[in-house]
Amino acid sequence: MSKTFDTLKPYLDKAMAFATARNLFEWDDQTIAPYEAAEYTSKVVGILSDEYMKCLINDDVRKLIKKLKEDKEQEELTDKEKAIIKELCKTYEQLESIPPEEYRAFNELTLVANRAWTKAKKDKDYEHFAPYLKKIIEYKKKFAGYRVKKGQELYEVLLGDFEECFGIKDLDIFFDKIKKEIVPLLKQVANKSDTIDKNYNFLKYDLDKQREFNRFLCGYLGFDFNRGVIAESAHPFTLNLHNHDVRITNKYIENNLESAMFSVIHETGHALYEMNIDDSLTQTPVGTGASMGMHESQSRLYENIIGRSKAFWIPLYDKLVETYPENLKNISLDDFIRGVNKAEPGLIRTEADELSYPLHIIIRYEIEKMIFSGEADIDKLPELWNSKCQEYLGITPENDAEGILQDIHWSFGEFGYFPSYAIGSAVASQIYAKIVEVMPVEDYLKEGNLTPIREFLRDSIHKYGATKNTNQILMDITQEEFNADYYVNYLKDKYEKLYNL
Amino acid sequence: MSKTFDTLKPYLDKAMAFATARNLFEWDDQTIAPYEAAEYTSKVVGILSDEYMKCLINDDVRKLIKKLKEDKEQEELTDKEKAIIKELCKTYEQLESIPPEEYRAFNELTLVANRAWTKAKKDKDYEHFAPYLKKIIEYKKKFAGYRVKKGQELYEVLLGDFEECFGIKDLDIFFDKIKKEIVPLLKQVANKSDTIDKNYNFLKYDLDKQREFNRFLCGYLGFDFNRGVIAESAHPFTLNLHNHDVRITNKYIENNLESAMFSVIHETGHALYEMNIDDSLTQTPVGTGASMGMHESQSRLYENIIGRSKAFWIPLYDKLVETYPENLKNISLDDFIRGVNKAEPGLIRTEADELSYPLHIIIRYEIEKMIFSGEADIDKLPELWNSKCQEYLGITPENDAEGILQDIHWSFGEFGYFPSYAIGSAVASQIYAKIVEVMPVEDYLKEGNLTPIREFLRDSIHKYGATKNTNQILMDITQEEFNADYYVNYLKDKYEKLYNL
Repeated sequence: MSKTFDTLKPYLDKAMAFATARNLFEWDDQTIAPYEAAEYTSKVVGILSDEYMKCLINDDVRKLIKKLKEDKEQEELTDKEKAIIKELCKTYEQLESIPPEEYRAFNELTLVANRAWTKAKKDKDYEHFAPYLKKIIEYKKKFAGYRVKKGQELYEVLLGDFEECFGIKDLDIFFDKIKKEIVPLLKQVANKSDTIDKNYNFLKYDLDKQREFNRFLCGYLGFDFNRGVIAESAHPFTLNLHNHDVRITNKYIENNLESAMFSVIHETGHALYEMNIDDSLTQTPVGTGASMGMHESQSRLYENIIGRSKAFWIPLYDKLVETYPENLKNISLDDFIRGVNKAEPGLIRTEADELSYPLHIIIRYEIEKMIFSGEADIDKLPELWNSKCQEYLGITPENDAEGILQDIHWSFGEFGYFPSYAIGSAVASQIYAKIVEVMPVEDYLKEGNLTPIREFLRDSIHKYGATKNTNQILMDITQEEFNADYYVNYLKDKYEKLYNL
Repeated sequence: MSKTFDTLKPYLDKAMAFATARNLFEWDDQTIAPYEAAEYTSKVVGILSDEYMKCLINDDVRKLIKKLKEDKEQEELTDKEKAIIKELCKTYEQLESIPPEEYRAFNELTLVANRAWTKAKKDKDYEHFAPYLKKIIEYKKKFAGYRVKKGQELYEVLLGDFEECFGIKDLDIFFDKIKKEIVPLLKQVANKSDTIDKNYNFLKYDLDKQREFNRFLCGYLGFDFNRGVIAESAHPFTLNLHNHDVRITNKYIENNLESAMFSVIHETGHALYEMNIDDSLTQTPVGTGASMGMHESQSRLYENIIGRSKAFWIPLYDKLVETYPENLKNISLDDFIRGVNKAEPGLIRTEADELSYPLHIIIRYEIEKMIFSGEADIDKLPELWNSKCQEYLGITPENDAEGILQDIHWSFGEFGYFPSYAIGSAVASQIYAKIVEVMPVEDYLKEGNLTPIREFLRDSIHKYGATKNTNQILMDITQEEFNADYYVNYLKDKYEKLYNL
């Protein structure tokens, strides 16, 4: 037992309480809060955020951390405590160098910028957003500049905030591989798009029946309704207060069967991660996923690799047909599986199929890299976007709303975030390759037995929270570090079969 | 502009933020939080409560308040600021004298006591709860003892926490009047109970139709859905984050048409109060109702005086019949009005009709008074309860669950709270008598025009928040202080007509 750590604990608990409250306000805002509440409620959330910062970033905590890093103190720390100190150091590294008045000005800017982005997207008018985007980029460069090491790229600093295991070099290798293998594959697939008919997906599907079936699906995957809830929001998301309160949302669209179904599988993947974090870690700085990419690997493993497989649907498909006999009675399970895996290059990332998805990420990654190396002219980003879109996806946006303005992230200053989505897909493939090795996973899926998979993920990933990083987890499971070959092979194998290439 | 007040403001804002967060957790807990969340979430709420206390009760704030009470400072304060200081002084008076370790021990005790009460009520076993109740009463006596003035009763201190305008003397006069006039009236009515048939109320009423009709009713009364929401919970309640986010809940029962309908009218009465508090007061210590009793006057004015009147239902009843033609097509509006006003002595306060309701309060008031004067033997409370129940209502509970154990309040240490319910009904009658004088209210109701009533209440009560107390409000509206005659006359008049006495 470290006395110094015990002195630190009340600060951590307080920060946890403020962060949890902020999360609850976020949940509430996205799910139920009345329209006019925001202006007054934001004052509350602002104060909670300030208090969160103040109780973590202050001289007392700074001294305690410094002391805890001494050899003598380290000896007395448990692994969990060491991981907590490491997380805290990361937070200090990210925030401490930024002068508070600049941080506040930046946060105020993003509020305005986000509104400008909303309007610009609605009006399909990039020029309206460009001045805000320029200012945001200036701030991000400045902030990264405070922390950048000699010879390091600014963009590297930003990437590091989301994934400690993936820098520019790793991502360049990863994405080059994708470009080389997937771009030509997607072109072949696009030419054979007509061979798969999925009109059934766009018939009318009663919303209450969708709610009921998707709730069933969520429980089928192992979501524990005593420790979580499902609500509705404009965009599906997962949010947790702690490991005994994990919440997901969904959005039901009458003329789209797939949309809510694969959203719920995706969010349940995130939720199972948070629900299975060890009780001893929840409500601490390491009581969450190892990284954004690791989290996304769990949602995508469930959504794509498991959720779009025939084996998974064998015990489920009859129930789905019984729910909507008028639409599905003539659609065989094989038709349905072909339908949910149909790939077709489109302009919108969030609607992209599994095959084109990583190409959407590459467009963003390459543009972000150019922005922070100074190679990109911000006024000319739409042209840059459109040309990359044509190059990788073979199509060109007709306007900025379906091009450069489609994602919200930049309006909040989130640069370096997108690659995690693709990392997640690749990590999922690498892990799944191991699962196939250690258990008869297809048989389990066919029997409707999800427990062995869930327990494998719990025991090798979830329960550790953020006490291990992505590469440590991958090493412990697969005995190798991140390896994108599994992902490329998975996609090639799947789509070559599906389209008889 | 007072500089001293400006120095105080950040403390108030912080306290407001913590209190708002606590409110949101309360809302969430009652409406959506998953079953197992409580244990972990209570840690968060505990920290927020501690922080709330710490930022209000400390030497800096103490000094500022002391300074602000000086004559020179008072001159610079606006009325709103003076009212805020007054509220703060009340909080100090209530909390400062209690040693923090006793306060904490008491809060821990109430958590356990509440669980014991739940079990005792379920098992109809007062003896299980008695030891906890004794301890709670000891604490309450001790805490009141720290603040009691010479010659003052302990119970007077507790009453003052809820209503600054009503002490034992006032309540004795009030309740004696009720006993004298209402107890005999209720006996007459009970003998003629068979003359009103309300079987229609207990037929099957589709829950979704109830939800829809009650939402309509809520909007009809003036609830602004841009600034509020309706959800569901085990017991209906109203909660606000600020005046632009006011929330009510309802509970729908399939075999009871009235239950949800009069609940929504009641809660909308509370909600209109909070929604109409002035923007300049919300998120300050005076940004809420003047008192518990004043709040309850608004909910009861809408629920009972307006909501159970024929004039109110004239423009609405057809819609209700159209919603449930199978049950209501043969029930005339007059039948319906008789049904919703039917009085029948029962054992449960929360299910009581308008006429017997105050008698339920008198039972509790008299017992609480005896507890704190030392006249009551805690082990013998069930007998005391039952004899008073027989005396005032003419019936005796068969077990403790429908007697002494029915209400949750004492398990939380809330003594002195019940009288506010009856004060609310009486204040409502006094205010309504004035409304009848100043506007053709029945005509408005018949036309479906609720606006003049709503605006009257907004302009004479709601907008002031807690900057005026109950008697100031009553004086300004009715040119007299609290006068229970209006209430007694209202009840006598209404029930003598209804039962042809």
